[in-house]
Amino acid sequence: MDAKLIVDEVRLTPILISDPPLLNVQGVHQPYTPRLVVEVITRGGVSGLGETYGDGVYLDLARPLAEALPGRAVTDVNDLFALAEATDPGPRSGSGSGSGDEGASEAGVDAGGLRGVRTADKLRLSVVSAFETACLDALGKTLGLPVHALLGGKVRDSVEYSAYLFYRWAAHPAGGPVDDWGAALDPAGIVAQARRFDRAHGFRSFKLKGGVFPPEQEMAAIRALAEEFPGRPLRLDPNGAWSVETSLSVARELKDVLEYLEDPASGTDAMAEVAAGTEVPLATNMCVTTVQEIPEAFAKGAVRIVLCDHHYWGGLGRTRELAALCRTYGVGLSMHSNTHLGISLAAMTQVAATLPELHHACDTHYPWQTEDIVTTRPVFRDGRLTVSDAPGLGVDLDRDALAALHRRWLDDDGTLRDRDDAAAMHAANPEWRPRRW
Amino acid sequence: MDAKLIVDEVRLTPILISDPPLLNVQGVHQPYTPRLVVEVITRGGVSGLGETYGDGVYLDLARPLAEALPGRAVTDVNDLFALAEATDPGPRSGSGSGSGDEGASEAGVDAGGLRGVRTADKLRLSVVSAFETACLDALGKTLGLPVHALLGGKVRDSVEYSAYLFYRWAAHPAGGPVDDWGAALDPAGIVAQARRFDRAHGFRSFKLKGGVFPPEQEMAAIRALAEEFPGRPLRLDPNGAWSVETSLSVARELKDVLEYLEDPASGTDAMAEVAAGTEVPLATNMCVTTVQEIPEAFAKGAVRIVLCDHHYWGGLGRTRELAALCRTYGVGLSMHSNTHLGISLAAMTQVAATLPELHHACDTHYPWQTEDIVTTRPVFRDGRLTVSDAPGLGVDLDRDALAALHRRWLDDDGTLRDRDDAAAMHAANPEWRPRRW
Repeated sequence: MDAKLIVDEVRLTPILISDPPLLNVQGVHQPYTPRLVVEVITRGGVSGLGETYGDGVYLDLARPLAEALPGRAVTDVNDLFALAEATDPGPRSGSGSGSGDEGASEAGVDAGGLRGVRTADKLRLSVVSAFETACLDALGKTLGLPVHALLGGKVRDSVEYSAYLFYRWAAHPAGGPVDDWGAALDPAGIVAQARRFDRAHGFRSFKLKGGVFPPEQEMAAIRALAEEFPGRPLRLDPNGAWSVETSLSVARELKDVLEYLEDPASGTDAMAEVAAGTEVPLATNMCVTTVQEIPEAFAKGAVRIVLCDHHYWGGLGRTRELAALCRTYGVGLSMHSNTHLGISLAAMTQVAATLPELHHACDTHYPWQTEDIVTTRPVFRDGRLTVSDAPGLGVDLDRDALAALHRRWLDDDGTLRDRDDAAAMHAANPEWRPRRW
Repeated sequence: MDAKLIVDEVRLTPILISDPPLLNVQGVHQPYTPRLVVEVITRGGVSGLGETYGDGVYLDLARPLAEALPGRAVTDVNDLFALAEATDPGPRSGSGSGSGDEGASEAGVDAGGLRGVRTADKLRLSVVSAFETACLDALGKTLGLPVHALLGGKVRDSVEYSAYLFYRWAAHPAGGPVDDWGAALDPAGIVAQARRFDRAHGFRSFKLKGGVFPPEQEMAAIRALAEEFPGRPLRLDPNGAWSVETSLSVARELKDVLEYLEDPASGTDAMAEVAAGTEVPLATNMCVTTVQEIPEAFAKGAVRIVLCDHHYWGGLGRTRELAALCRTYGVGLSMHSNTHLGISLAAMTQVAATLPELHHACDTHYPWQTEDIVTTRPVFRDGRLTVSDAPGLGVDLDRDALAALHRRWLDDDGTLRDRDDAAAMHAANPEWRPRRW
């Protein structure tokens, strides 16, 4: 193997990025969210970039994997899964592992809370995803090829994204970064938010993060969007907060305007029951988040659309495998997003460009993020991103920005190093409890 | 895109290769078998190689695809499927399309007869597979990377193959190429064949192509092999020639010595019935040959092992997707072979090297082939081939050999340009009919 393709060093940089007070079923986004930037540097001096979750449990897995990588080739991405398993230090200690983590059992819920039960496998896949992306970026930069070409080539020149609408407060109650979006806590606020997304980025489709208010109020917001933007694809995602009965009632009410209903109820059985009772397509990024969950969910007809996410599934190659699974079983494909920066957005766009079966606009939190660590912010036009043909992911690291966000992580006393939306909500309202309808 | 990676020309060379009189349920191999060599030549002057079936129906699809490729990048392999569909000239005419082909309906059976009902989709996938392999070979040669590195990297340094034992005649009845293997028509003949395979190539596992003689006789051959080679993995493949009852009876008799029983009965339902009645793992390359066939077969528990074959599934990338499907559903993976030369063997070895879930030795007809179009015949050691790390597939074309085999194809009056094992058998015995037990 050409020495230029051998890994010389891996740098891990945990950062805290500012995040607006977006509401969801688990609480509210904290003022800052942890992310991990992975740099794979080759003996040829090329640096490949990856980005993933930055909570302590991920760092605990990333560190030994980073130590094991030097001397290996950046082409050897198939082997990363076995390597991550071999270097897994084992049961997580309590320290720095975030809310809900209960050590060896890996019980509890994922950072962000919206990915079902946390397992060692899920954590490793999220860490591997950043290493795989960084290897592919380094490989592409070395060869002069875009990442999509390393994945078999793009089948489209631009990728469509949807506007990700959130109920939100104007500001974090305990202080923190501020923006000029103001509050959105009713249908009019959601429509105003959608108008701004439409104006600024040209998004054609809209997704509302629900599970925050009673379903009637969220249905009213969807109705208001449908009136303001007739014919546009609309999605509602209460993160499993509803009963089967409520889900069916919402589906009945909104069946004429919904592109799909995302995770109305929690768990494969409940989703299957809802699916059996409505013609509205159900989508998920909660009951199908690993290949282990696929056979049961597909057999039960629980979902018609799976949201892929390279951070969940173990990278860009595994995302393509998920697409093949969906194609085989006649299940549609969309793309999920969690809070992320420009490295992940570039990776999402590169892999999305290679998936013929991606017939829904991808989700992205990116327009909510005011900070980034890439030198040039990507620009959405008509709701789309042009697929970069530049070598690798097509993004460059802004080292000053990275250093500043890492400094913030270093300076944190530990309270923000693990995302905890419930804690943020409790700080504002100690009586708050997650609601189910 | 770098001009070096743009396709300048595609050359298609149909050839006839000598083949011994191997017996199967459909008849006997003809003296010569058609193959198609695909060369994708880049503007950088690099030639990438692919090999697939060479019957008329495949040539009819390959020609317009070859014309459409120049100007495209060799990295654009995802797009080959849509391109093959777009350039498909449509319903096959009767001419040059081989036995069993009935035009638009694509009814009848595949060349070789052992791949279920022929469909337009299957034909296209087999053609695309050679183009995809050739593109990856050209890409690898241009970049200085082995094909396995383009597929995420090898996870093993050598690939294990099994000895492919056949009942056979000493010579073709109507003349043709001869070899020194002699006849093998009883247990002693099969054991002698296995000994020679063992001695010459060091194969550890043995597969007997059955469906030729009554099951008792084939069971006796397996028993004789088990005695001669105690503890070695043994497989028996009657190509669906048996009833459910017969299959269950054979499985009962041989359960202590079989690694797996391959396609004992025909069709998913029959296979599922057999599977339910035996602990012997069932493998298939007949009831699961396309992704469309997977959901039903997996749901019914019809097979525990699928034999991948990049010629069937649409290339090396799709073979990896099949592996992901099998991994997801807890189904094992092995590899199928049909008569092939060194280009295909190199492609099989490269993709096999990347599949962690390949836990069975791969099939190959290669030791039966006395001719080749690559400059250096690969050598099996201890039944394994070393995975080449040379750029591309790691094989070079012997243009004199290619020209000679193409000349044979040109000189043929049309009787051998489409493989027809039944016709060859009928020439020897007009009364012969395929048997079922």
